Amino acid sequence: MTKAVYPGSFDPVTNGHLDIAVRAASLFDELIVAVYDAPPKHLLFTTDQRVELMRQALGHLPNVKIGFFTGLIVDYAHKVGARAIVRGLRMSSDFEHEFEMALMNKNLAPDVEVVCLMTAVDFQFLSSSLLKEVAQLGGSISNLVPKHVAAALKKKYSLPEESVSRKGG
Amino acid sequence: MTKAVYPGSFDPVTNGHLDIAVRAASLFDELIVAVYDAPPKHLLFTTDQRVELMRQALGHLPNVKIGFFTGLIVDYAHKVGARAIVRGLRMSSDFEHEFEMALMNKNLAPDVEVVCLMTAVDFQFLSSSLLKEVAQLGGSISNLVPKHVAAALKKKYSLPEESVSRKGG
Amino acid sequence: MTKAVYPGSFDPVTNGHLDIAVRAASLFDELIVAVYDAPPKHLLFTTDQRVELMRQALGHLPNVKIGFFTGLIVDYAHKVGARAIVRGLRMSSDFEHEFEMALMNKNLAPDVEVVCLMTAVDFQFLSSSLLKEVAQLGGSISNLVPKHVAAALKKKYSLPEESVSRKGG
Amino acid sequence: MTKAVYPGSFDPVTNGHLDIAVRAASLFDELIVAVYDAPPKHLLFTTDQRVELMRQALGHLPNVKIGFFTGLIVDYAHKVGARAIVRGLRMSSDFEHEFEMALMNKNLAPDVEVVCLMTAVDFQFLSSSLLKEVAQLGGSISNLVPKHVAAALKKKYSLPEESVSRKGG
Amino acid sequence: MTKAVYPGSFDPVTNGHLDIAVRAASLFDELIVAVYDAPPKHLLFTTDQRVELMRQALGHLPNVKIGFFTGLIVDYAHKVGARAIVRGLRMSSDFEHEFEMALMNKNLAPDVEVVCLMTAVDFQFLSSSLLKEVAQLGGSISNLVPKHVAAALKKKYSLPEESVSRKGG
Amino acid sequence: MTKAVYPGSFDPVTNGHLDIAVRAASLFDELIVAVYDAPPKHLLFTTDQRVELMRQALGHLPNVKIGFFTGLIVDYAHKVGARAIVRGLRMSSDFEHEFEMALMNKNLAPDVEVVCLMTAVDFQFLSSSLLKEVAQLGGSISNLVPKHVAAALKKKYSLPEESVSRKGG
Repeated sequence: MTKAVYPGSFDPVTNGHLDIAVRAASLFDELIVAVYDAPPKHLLFTTDQRVELMRQALGHLPNVKIGFFTGLIVDYAHKVGARAIVRGLRMSSDFEHEFEMALMNKNLAPDVEVVCLMTAVDFQFLSSSLLKEVAQLGGSISNLVPKHVAAALKKKYSLPEESVSRKGG
Repeated sequence: MTKAVYPGSFDPVTNGHLDIAVRAASLFDELIVAVYDAPPKHLLFTTDQRVELMRQALGHLPNVKIGFFTGLIVDYAHKVGARAIVRGLRMSSDFEHEFEMALMNKNLAPDVEVVCLMTAVDFQFLSSSLLKEVAQLGGSISNLVPKHVAAALKKKYSLPEESVSRKGG
Repeated sequence: MTKAVYPGSFDPVTNGHLDIAVRAASLFDELIVAVYDAPPKHLLFTTDQRVELMRQALGHLPNVKIGFFTGLIVDYAHKVGARAIVRGLRMSSDFEHEFEMALMNKNLAPDVEVVCLMTAVDFQFLSSSLLKEVAQLGGSISNLVPKHVAAALKKKYSLPEESVSRKGG
Repeated sequence: MTKAVYPGSFDPVTNGHLDIAVRAASLFDELIVAVYDAPPKHLLFTTDQRVELMRQALGHLPNVKIGFFTGLIVDYAHKVGARAIVRGLRMSSDFEHEFEMALMNKNLAPDVEVVCLMTAVDFQFLSSSLLKEVAQLGGSISNLVPKHVAAALKKKYSLPEESVSRKGG
Repeated sequence: MTKAVYPGSFDPVTNGHLDIAVRAASLFDELIVAVYDAPPKHLLFTTDQRVELMRQALGHLPNVKIGFFTGLIVDYAHKVGARAIVRGLRMSSDFEHEFEMALMNKNLAPDVEVVCLMTAVDFQFLSSSLLKEVAQLGGSISNLVPKHVAAALKKKYSLPEESVSRKGG
Repeated sequence: MTKAVYPGSFDPVTNGHLDIAVRAASLFDELIVAVYDAPPKHLLFTTDQRVELMRQALGHLPNVKIGFFTGLIVDYAHKVGARAIVRGLRMSSDFEHEFEMALMNKNLAPDVEVVCLMTAVDFQFLSSSLLKEVAQLGGSISNLVPKHVAAALKKKYSLPEESVSRKGG
């Protein structure tokens, strides 16, 4: 039985992440989607919120669990008994950085494999950071995230902070 | 009649930007150089200053206008009736990021085209950020920007802030 | 008035090429799609066939003409009075080679601009060579080329040459 | 149960290929190493020889089988019931081409996943073509391939064809 | 006699930097390893500490000196009489940025050459920033830096600041 | 004393190659420009012609010698006592392939260094193969090669073979 972990910030989860998670779940016996519990300063959503948005999106899949982690991902993989770390690659990924991290992980934990899946063509241009930039500036994101994520983004950006954004040209 | 918009931070405008603007102006009936009205924290010049430096550089071209914008560039293109967004590419551009933005723009506004021109060979190594780094450290930039921009940079970097920079090795 | 030329081998034309041609035709007053009249040894279709397949695909556009050329593309641009050469870029393009050619063209003909458009997301993975490889091995290509091109490919690959291809595993 | 196929020319198999195969075999229930049965003109070893060299290298692994295929790899995956196609990436891989093929495969067979593993750091510079070039010119390859492959290469290059190679400077 | 300078932040020096320095020292008559005296806000070690860590690592090499600099590296090269600036490239380097800087340096000081060496295969995945990230999260770095650097890192990360890092998943 | 070798096909030598050779000659005590004595089928000029064109271009430099080699470049470096192999990089170089070769050479001969210089900005778009393509199609190459090379190219392309090239569009 092979257990895999799919780590990320997921701030917030996009349709691109879901595409990878669903496909990874079909390849491995169990998939743990692991939200990185990073300090909140550079993130839009809290760890709890990011876990919850993910749960609403993937909770229906029987062999998928949602967790969170801090520290090294290879330590987390060891803790949960995962032998594979799933990464979703887009053409616009920084492959060199992906390699750097994968080879460093191999140096730290030779028994854990980094497994890369390629994001579907429709989501090649979709990153969480670009998504947030567009959402903040009022662009339509309805075909890029699940409905509950679009609602969460809308709520975030209609708070007073919105006053810094978009006043027209 | 095709109207195009050439957006950027232009902090400050370089000879590379001017090369792209002049060439774009020869291809389209009207070119609007659109200075991004971003929050000033990460910029050296104010929006007004960046617009003015551009105006001095390009004001003599009959089919070029200088504007500024906030929000999504595709919204600005719609507002001014532009069907093309001009981007200047250098070999050292982050092509993947360019693609990501272009495909996102296409998703937001299918009727607007991103049109890329390739920067002339002499300006391949010239970015605004590298220019500022060199200017701040006292390097010669006379062949990289128009005279009035060189003067503006000199003035910026001889203010008290200069005290943080270049004290020799 | 700006005339542009869109050169290529188009062996054969794909939906990706058509996407670029239609968009370029909307930006410029006149677009000449120029089929490269190369020696036939490495091509599947003759120059006449490639021109004809293109004509069936684009003949309905009022400001598009189909031509062919040999020699340098900048010489052809001069001959037909075009000031822009259109290139369609995909994320999987060899950008460095594109730059090399564009800068060489600039060296040969400073008055002609290379203008790059970015291929739509659905056709990012589509090149003529990969298309032919798939068609020859019996894969479905119906969503990648116009119907008349699919028919032409089918005809090519059911000729005796087919004997070299696909015999199962 | 997940079955995976690891396709390639393997002309000949290197330690880099074996690294990928062993790691893939630990992730999936069954791994079929599939030698591409291509026309021999551009290959050094026949299909039979390449299968045999692979068998000697991997025959001891209980969940690994060696096969060969022609035609589309997705058709072969369907035939043998594999849901994953394994690719070994090196930093010097042509990622764009990998993506092009993966997205084309997804277009042809949405139910088959391309799964990429990253080659170990020691084999990052090792490709079959560079290996053959070095072997033909008399360079040492003993740490790059299994012994029986080194012997097979030595035999190939000491045949009369050797007369084209290495005569000193 | 050719003198070369090898500049960097070296925050801290890694086995990859040492590999480059030793090889550069074998090519040139004298090598000056020049620590960049940058404002400390984004650095872990002070300039004095970084110089001292380097001195312990390389002090035994007769033709290597350790220095520090601020301002433009080409100005420093002129000051110390160096005709070459050594850069260590990894596959995961940002080549475009390296080129940008090299061409800018050439514009500033045509008499100074940028000379690139390629990092050994074992250190391809090793950058100072990734090293610090791993060290801070408690991963083993013993095969990536000299012993005295490992000790210095350990000391830094066991200070009160550690309270922000690694609390398990 | 450091001796370096600068290998290449030089078919024919361009101003870009000369730029690298002159700069390498200023860094090392002796530079041997080594023409690769490859089978002539894919080359325009014979080994003798390529050596002679190089000699006319660089014969005036006191510390430069012109040679030729077959086999592995590291074996040639050993034979002539060179400790460095010079490579000229352009932004459009295939860096990954450069790395692959450099790491393979390191594996074959750990005592020889690959040293990369970056081609001057004016020659970034200039490769021998693109040069030949342009020359064959009648484009001007006068600012890309020395006069005697331009003359040699003209002579080659006015032989009967010219009949395959440039007949207009």
